[in-house]
Amino acid sequence: MAPRKEVFRGKKVLVTGGLGFIGSNLAARLVKLGADVLLVDSLIPEYGGNLFNIHGIEKKVRVNISDVRDEHSMRYLIQGQDYLFNLAGQTSHIDSMQDPYTDLEINSKAQLFILESCRQYNPNVKIIFASTRQIYGKPEYLPVDERHPLRPVDVNGINKMAGEGYSILYNNVYGIRSCALRLTNTYGPRMRVKDARQTFLGIWIRLLVEKKPFEVWDGSQLRDFTYVEDAVDALLMVAKSDETEGQVFNLGGDSVISLKDLADLLIEVNGGGRRFIRSFPPQRKRIDIGDYYADFSRIRSLLGWEPRVSLCEGLLKTLVFYRKNLEHYR
Amino acid sequence: MAPRKEVFRGKKVLVTGGLGFIGSNLAARLVKLGADVLLVDSLIPEYGGNLFNIHGIEKKVRVNISDVRDEHSMRYLIQGQDYLFNLAGQTSHIDSMQDPYTDLEINSKAQLFILESCRQYNPNVKIIFASTRQIYGKPEYLPVDERHPLRPVDVNGINKMAGEGYSILYNNVYGIRSCALRLTNTYGPRMRVKDARQTFLGIWIRLLVEKKPFEVWDGSQLRDFTYVEDAVDALLMVAKSDETEGQVFNLGGDSVISLKDLADLLIEVNGGGRRFIRSFPPQRKRIDIGDYYADFSRIRSLLGWEPRVSLCEGLLKTLVFYRKNLEHYR
Repeated sequence: MAPRKEVFRGKKVLVTGGLGFIGSNLAARLVKLGADVLLVDSLIPEYGGNLFNIHGIEKKVRVNISDVRDEHSMRYLIQGQDYLFNLAGQTSHIDSMQDPYTDLEINSKAQLFILESCRQYNPNVKIIFASTRQIYGKPEYLPVDERHPLRPVDVNGINKMAGEGYSILYNNVYGIRSCALRLTNTYGPRMRVKDARQTFLGIWIRLLVEKKPFEVWDGSQLRDFTYVEDAVDALLMVAKSDETEGQVFNLGGDSVISLKDLADLLIEVNGGGRRFIRSFPPQRKRIDIGDYYADFSRIRSLLGWEPRVSLCEGLLKTLVFYRKNLEHYR
Repeated sequence: MAPRKEVFRGKKVLVTGGLGFIGSNLAARLVKLGADVLLVDSLIPEYGGNLFNIHGIEKKVRVNISDVRDEHSMRYLIQGQDYLFNLAGQTSHIDSMQDPYTDLEINSKAQLFILESCRQYNPNVKIIFASTRQIYGKPEYLPVDERHPLRPVDVNGINKMAGEGYSILYNNVYGIRSCALRLTNTYGPRMRVKDARQTFLGIWIRLLVEKKPFEVWDGSQLRDFTYVEDAVDALLMVAKSDETEGQVFNLGGDSVISLKDLADLLIEVNGGGRRFIRSFPPQRKRIDIGDYYADFSRIRSLLGWEPRVSLCEGLLKTLVFYRKNLEHYR
C-alpha cells in the first residue's frame, strides 16, 4: 500500500458541508496531504458553516457556496471528483421536529440526488457518508454496535437513516463505492458554539469561555465523545480502504462519562467555571435517548482506528481554540 | 369490549389508496360494518387504483380523487376522521429504482405531511400504516420477525422504512395513535394483474386466465402469501385495539412455498395451464431478496390474528374473480 500521505496527493476531493465543523477540520488535513480540495457549503446561518473555519487554508482550497438541495450545482460539482466526503446535513434534533420537511429535503432527498448524479456523471467516485448514532434511537443494550436495531426517536434520525440507506444501496446495486460512519458526539475546534444545534457541549464551552455558568440537563446520561481529529482519521481511513465499500462503522470515544462528570471535567480542565443541574425540558425529554455509547470494534478490527486524543486533552485543545477565537463563533 | 361490528358503525374512516387492491377490499368490509367510508385515490395508471374495484359498493362510499402528495387536499380530508388507513403508496421495486424521487415523494414525504396534518388538525385520529416486508431486505434468518435488521435492497424499501418510522415517531412523540403492518405478498380479488408492479402473482393469474403460459423466474425462492381478506382482518384488528399504538406487526401466510411449487399449485387449482422457468433478469437480480417468510407470532399473540384462508382456497377465489372480471383489469 502507498504511504497514506500519497493516497490523497493530487486527488480531487469534494467535501459537502466543507465550511462546517468536521468538514473544515477534514479540509485542513487534506490540504496537508496534498489533495485538490473543493469545499461546498450553503452557509445557512443555523448550521455549522463558518468562513473562519478555513482561516489559514483559504488560499489552498476552493470554496463553492451552494446548497446540497441545489441539484444543478451538485450535478456539476461532483463531476471529476475522486472522493466525496458527504458531510452536509441538518443536525439539530429539535429543528427536525419543528420543520421536518427541511430536514427531509437536506438529509434524505438531497442525498438521493447526489447519489443519482454520481451514478450518471461520476460512477468511479468514492463516497463517505457522515451518518449518526441518532439512527439507533434509544439503546436496547450498551455499548451499541452496528447490528443494533434502528429506531430513531426524531425526524432527523429517520432522514439520516434514509440517507445512509441510499448510500449503501447505491454501492450494492450500482457499484458506486460508498460507506458510512455513524458519528457520535464529535467535538473540538471549529464546532458550533453559538447554540446547542450541533451539541450541548458547544454551548457549555462558549459559556465557560465567557465566564458564565452553564446548564446541565439531568446529568446522569452516559455518553462517549470523539475528538474531531480522530473523526478525521476515521474519514480518511475508510476513504482509502477498499474493504469498506457498502459498510457502516460506528465511531466512539476513549471513555464513557456522565454529563455531570463531563461538566466537572470541563471546569477542571478550564481551571474554573460554574455549572448547575436542571431537569430535562419537556420538549427535549420526548426525543431523548437516555444513555448511549458505541462499540467501535468493527472499524478497529478492520482498519486499526481508535481514538488517540483523550477526552481531557481534547477538551483542553478545544478550550484553547475558543479562548483565542470565540469572537468568530458568536 | 363492544362486539367488533359495533366498533366501526357510524365511524368516519378514511382510506388512502382506497381504490387500490387492499384499500377497496377493506372498503367493502367497512361498508358491511356500517362505517362512513371515504376513499382517496390518485388513480395513477401505473398504480393499483381502479374504479371497478368498488363495483357494487360505489353508492355506499364517498370517493375523492386526489394524490397523497396534494398537501391541501389531504389537510382537508383528514379532518374529522376517526380512522385513517394509510394504504396509498408506490409499490413497484423496479419503478423505485428508475424514478427514486417519485417514490420518495409518495412513500416518504407525503406520509410525513399527512402525519403533520393529523397532528395539527386531527390529533385524535387513529392511523394504520401499510408497511412492507421490503424494509427488511435480504433476510439474515428465517422466519423473519419484527426485530430483524432493516436493510432495504431498493429505494422503495428505504422510503417505506422512513414512512413507517415517521408513523411510529408521531405516536411516540406526539401521541398521534399509529401502528404499522408489515405486509408480505398479499393476493386476492382486485389485485393488479396488468403487470408485475404489485406482485408477480398478478401477471401469472392474468396469463393463466388468458390461457397463456407464464414465466417463473428461478422458482426456488421461498415465500409466504396473505390472502387479502386475512389482511383486511388484520387491518381492522390493529385499528380497534388500544394495545397496538406505536407497534409494528408482520403479517404472513398459512404456508411457505417455493415459487415453482406455487406455480404448479396455481395450475392445479386452475385445472390446467403452462409455466416455464427462466433465469432471473439481471435488473431484478440486483434487488432480489432470496427466500423470505415471516414470523407473525407477535400479532397472533396480541390479537389472535392468523391466516384463515388457505393458499389453495385463496388462489381459487382469485382465479374465479378474474375469470369473471378480467376485462376490467387489463
